[in-house]
Amino acid sequence: MNHWSDRVADIDSFKVMDLLKRAKELESQGHDVVNMCVGEPDFSTPEPISEAGARAIQAGHTQYTPAAGIPQLREAIAGFYQQRYGLDISPERVIVTAGASGALLMVFATLANPGQTFMMADPGYPCNPRFLRLVEARGQLVPTTADDNYQLTPELIEQNWQENTAGILLASPANPTGSVVSREQFELISQTVRGLGGHRVVDELYHGLTYGLDAPSVLEVDQDAFVLNSFSKYFGMTGWRLGWTVVPETAVGEIERLAQNLFISPPTISQHAALAAFEPDTITILEQRREAFRERRDLLVAGLRELNFEIPVTPEGAFYVYADASRLTDNAFDFCWDLLEQDKIAVTPGVDFGEYRANQFVRFSYTTGVEQIEKALDRLRKRLS
Amino acid sequence: MNHWSDRVADIDSFKVMDLLKRAKELESQGHDVVNMCVGEPDFSTPEPISEAGARAIQAGHTQYTPAAGIPQLREAIAGFYQQRYGLDISPERVIVTAGASGALLMVFATLANPGQTFMMADPGYPCNPRFLRLVEARGQLVPTTADDNYQLTPELIEQNWQENTAGILLASPANPTGSVVSREQFELISQTVRGLGGHRVVDELYHGLTYGLDAPSVLEVDQDAFVLNSFSKYFGMTGWRLGWTVVPETAVGEIERLAQNLFISPPTISQHAALAAFEPDTITILEQRREAFRERRDLLVAGLRELNFEIPVTPEGAFYVYADASRLTDNAFDFCWDLLEQDKIAVTPGVDFGEYRANQFVRFSYTTGVEQIEKALDRLRKRLS
Repeated sequence: MNHWSDRVADIDSFKVMDLLKRAKELESQGHDVVNMCVGEPDFSTPEPISEAGARAIQAGHTQYTPAAGIPQLREAIAGFYQQRYGLDISPERVIVTAGASGALLMVFATLANPGQTFMMADPGYPCNPRFLRLVEARGQLVPTTADDNYQLTPELIEQNWQENTAGILLASPANPTGSVVSREQFELISQTVRGLGGHRVVDELYHGLTYGLDAPSVLEVDQDAFVLNSFSKYFGMTGWRLGWTVVPETAVGEIERLAQNLFISPPTISQHAALAAFEPDTITILEQRREAFRERRDLLVAGLRELNFEIPVTPEGAFYVYADASRLTDNAFDFCWDLLEQDKIAVTPGVDFGEYRANQFVRFSYTTGVEQIEKALDRLRKRLS
Repeated sequence: MNHWSDRVADIDSFKVMDLLKRAKELESQGHDVVNMCVGEPDFSTPEPISEAGARAIQAGHTQYTPAAGIPQLREAIAGFYQQRYGLDISPERVIVTAGASGALLMVFATLANPGQTFMMADPGYPCNPRFLRLVEARGQLVPTTADDNYQLTPELIEQNWQENTAGILLASPANPTGSVVSREQFELISQTVRGLGGHRVVDELYHGLTYGLDAPSVLEVDQDAFVLNSFSKYFGMTGWRLGWTVVPETAVGEIERLAQNLFISPPTISQHAALAAFEPDTITILEQRREAFRERRDLLVAGLRELNFEIPVTPEGAFYVYADASRLTDNAFDFCWDLLEQDKIAVTPGVDFGEYRANQFVRFSYTTGVEQIEKALDRLRKRLS
């Protein structure tokens, strides 16, 4: 009687899950494991946000909200676009969601018919194609390299466009590569995809976590793009499960209806807490953290390069280094297991992010302190010397 | 360029939304509107739960959790099945979800291939077929009447079974009718559907809110059924967005993988808060509220019957009365608008719950106090006398 749907057989778990399970075992045996797999900041939620959350509970804000979020938060997010990007976004176009995951689900459900595809860079966030698979559409993974800045380019898009391609998904900064799309590149890509009649969806989840530059939003050049964002990464609110999407005015009704039916409303306390996310005190804390992430990145990138990992494009954002280990191993997946078993360093194998040359790469997260990063580099030095 | 997917065109908003908008307008003009549309308890979250939530924030429980929920909560829910139903459910089989909505999405995604259907009673919760539509499957609405207790019966299931029917969805207590499936009926239905090779999904969201009886769980007679439940209704935690599903052991891996990919994790603070939901102090509060709901139901049902609404089956659970208004109007939808505009009573039209004889019915929610219910009955008395 175990006739599950065909779709669930296609929706994989992450390879890193087995590694993490083994890492826990090792830890419980008394080993000191440096965990560089984690996809969330090690910093806890900034105090002003947590305090606002606690106040919301006390005030009894524990019932459903409008499906698109409380109006004050939609306005605050719109205000943030004004302040950070100089963009005039109507609060109407901002839909608050249950994490960026909720936004991904609704945006793809709105844009992709069964059998259609969304083009996206390989390597990329592994869940993206799985959201499409859920609604019987597909991710169309296009191999990208350091030469392309690990991003889709107008040329790649034109070369790979098919009759059933519904649009493209960009991520800037990208997971796992940390690469950022420039404003000029956004302009060229939008033009190309618009010309082909396709939708533009842009994952801007790691905005705020860029080092030495600010990532432009696609909305600076393309008001018909669908933007995904989150309170998880820059704002340090992972467990609160809150994100948002900015959609074209013409799609607001569609997304709102989906939100009503599929989610009822985003978590209420989280919404009230997030009102404090844009306050000056919070931003001060977040900018200090951003500086800490920059230091870690510099330390890790320099250390790995010294050890003969190839990192041809310095990651400009997020908190990951996607390192080519092919000068050190011909099987990055086994290499990850060796690092864990022998050196007690947990990293994520490239195969979790796509197929193209995936078994040459490993992803290091710098969501752990400088001391831990130095410890990992020391251990690597011993192994590789 | 507004080529949205075919699916979103099929996913409707609720008719009651327009009524609620107008109700707000009337209120802002100073009118005293009795709102009997609401699908959530008017009681706020019980204090022990809220306090546990506030403590979780203070303790810094603000990061991701395992996708299936924190182990303590899965154990606590399993313990609740032992305590309430005398059932021995392994905590492994309990997956904590982002509201029952999250559970619905994952269960249907696991069970329904494109083009397949799930059979369900008309009238019913309008979002159920829309979750199926999302994954390119369909809801198969089967007209039910008071004679069937507004539930699918073995006979209805056999008569309506098609080659592409993947299973059935039952709700007990049901929204909008408040009808409860007995243990014997569960047994017969499970047997029938098992014989037809179909899945059993049972919405037990309103468990705990039954009056003069306890609703049996399908798990008492069928360990391979998929059960949906929620902290929203009985536990008064709507805005926290937390639910759960109990699935057969063989489906745990599938649902967990979906949860990892589609949700990352359920809201963390809500999970820690929910640990207090099963404590004796909380249960005492909840049972007092249950008694208050019973009083309201008795008052409302008696009052409506007196006014010539037909309620052939006394609703035994949830907080709704689904009243046949056909002795009072030949268009229940217009009747709802008249009640709002002229008598300032907001109720939900039957068309929001299905198609079968839907325009004869209106749903009254008793998620408002006795005083308000009496006020509504007075106004109805004046209109109908």
